[in-house]
Amino acid sequence: MTRVLVTGATGFLGRPAVHALRDRGLVVEEAGSRRADLLAPGAPAALIRETRPTHLLHLAWYARPGLFWDAAENAAWVHATLALVEAFAAAGGRRAVLAGTCAEYAWGAEGALREDGPTSEPGSFYGVCKDATRRVAEGLCLRRGVSFAWGRVFFLYGPREHPDRLIASVVRKLLRGERIATTDGTQVRDFLHVGDVGDAFAALLASDVEGAVNVASGCGVRVRDVLCEVGAATGRADLIDIGGLPQRPGDPPVIVADAARLREEVGWLPRFDLSAGIADAVEWWRREGGQ
Amino acid sequence: MTRVLVTGATGFLGRPAVHALRDRGLVVEEAGSRRADLLAPGAPAALIRETRPTHLLHLAWYARPGLFWDAAENAAWVHATLALVEAFAAAGGRRAVLAGTCAEYAWGAEGALREDGPTSEPGSFYGVCKDATRRVAEGLCLRRGVSFAWGRVFFLYGPREHPDRLIASVVRKLLRGERIATTDGTQVRDFLHVGDVGDAFAALLASDVEGAVNVASGCGVRVRDVLCEVGAATGRADLIDIGGLPQRPGDPPVIVADAARLREEVGWLPRFDLSAGIADAVEWWRREGGQ
Repeated sequence: MTRVLVTGATGFLGRPAVHALRDRGLVVEEAGSRRADLLAPGAPAALIRETRPTHLLHLAWYARPGLFWDAAENAAWVHATLALVEAFAAAGGRRAVLAGTCAEYAWGAEGALREDGPTSEPGSFYGVCKDATRRVAEGLCLRRGVSFAWGRVFFLYGPREHPDRLIASVVRKLLRGERIATTDGTQVRDFLHVGDVGDAFAALLASDVEGAVNVASGCGVRVRDVLCEVGAATGRADLIDIGGLPQRPGDPPVIVADAARLREEVGWLPRFDLSAGIADAVEWWRREGGQ
Repeated sequence: MTRVLVTGATGFLGRPAVHALRDRGLVVEEAGSRRADLLAPGAPAALIRETRPTHLLHLAWYARPGLFWDAAENAAWVHATLALVEAFAAAGGRRAVLAGTCAEYAWGAEGALREDGPTSEPGSFYGVCKDATRRVAEGLCLRRGVSFAWGRVFFLYGPREHPDRLIASVVRKLLRGERIATTDGTQVRDFLHVGDVGDAFAALLASDVEGAVNVASGCGVRVRDVLCEVGAATGRADLIDIGGLPQRPGDPPVIVADAARLREEVGWLPRFDLSAGIADAVEWWRREGGQ
């Protein structure tokens, strides 16, 4: 029997991932409320003992908007994650899939980011810690006979997004009828609806693809075009002042994934295009409030 | 008051390091017999609580000769080390010095290895795990206001060396009157007597130099020349058949440190040259037996 332990199961990405796993008929053990507990000494091993998973989907990490890029807390998640993977391997776990990030890559390179591209000099401590975790966890799983994959997440949006993050904050302001100023939004990013990201992780877990896999659309879109979609979906495009804020210095012009591994090896395709995805997110905020 | 917690204090490098710290008048808390304990959940934090150090010298790691290069145990030492550094920082620790390794560098590069050289693709899991530990621990200390240095150890020899390691095994065999065959020994390595390495770590800890520092002689010597010194010091050069074993495939021709940071910034110089160092090691084996 396949029995999946999902950490961060009540989080932004965790909820749709759990939903997608259950849709595939898998038994899921959620460790959502235990996020903080994972950082306590002995907690990762205890969680494995209690849940006895055959598969591990580890999504939990420090994620406070704005702060997570540089926070010392990232280091605590490195060792909690390694302790978790080690306990999972020691208990006979078969396959582990962990959430990585596009922040592992050296940004500013030309073209789409491929999984075999350099990750030696991430620009943030978050990227450093995720990359270090991947290197050690991958080597550990190889030596313990555990199948290992690492899904590198790009830019997510959708229901339950933290209200301080870009798209959620714009949606909420427009639904409240507030004016907002943004940068000129010429940065190109790879956006994916969180429901699709969760589903892609479920597909990756169910596959036997190993190593790093970009979990992304493979399509670059300008941030201003995303804002326009939000304007259209809310009916309040008139409230957006694109270019009213200065560009942030050092913001890389393009961060887009090469999604060939996900598409061809995992055999996964997104359900939402940008327009449908944004409409879904707006609909959720309209319905669930948070205004 | 300076109060130094030394992990691995009863080990090959730990003993001379503790000796050198005490010579400098520092108060030392030894965590030697607790090496295994450091891997138990909660043990790093408990050790910090018990010893309340202002300074940390972390030398403990998995080190079984031959096996340590590829062992899964390296991963456990990554998270134990990060948990230790985190507990140290949380308890107000001021300066942490940790043992790294020349195996972090990409071997095979031309010339002496400088601290700012690339470490993104170590050739062993040991190197991967040490490098990952350095990146995360350094970032953590920076964010927690802890002064941090990372001493990259090259090739050690001397009293109490594990009898399965090269120089100790040759010394013991010659003292027993056994013939030995070696490779042709044209590989060039950077050797340092363990007493000097321990003293260099004490000097590094007492300094305020930060970041990676090669703990090495800065001098390359052919392995065959080291063997000749052992032959001379034991009086049994006749028993050594240099070239009697084939070269190991993939053994890099040169691994030598640039030791300028240690010499100029830390202000440290070795006491032993190769000849005196080998004579000291041979004398120890002769006296302490192990034959």
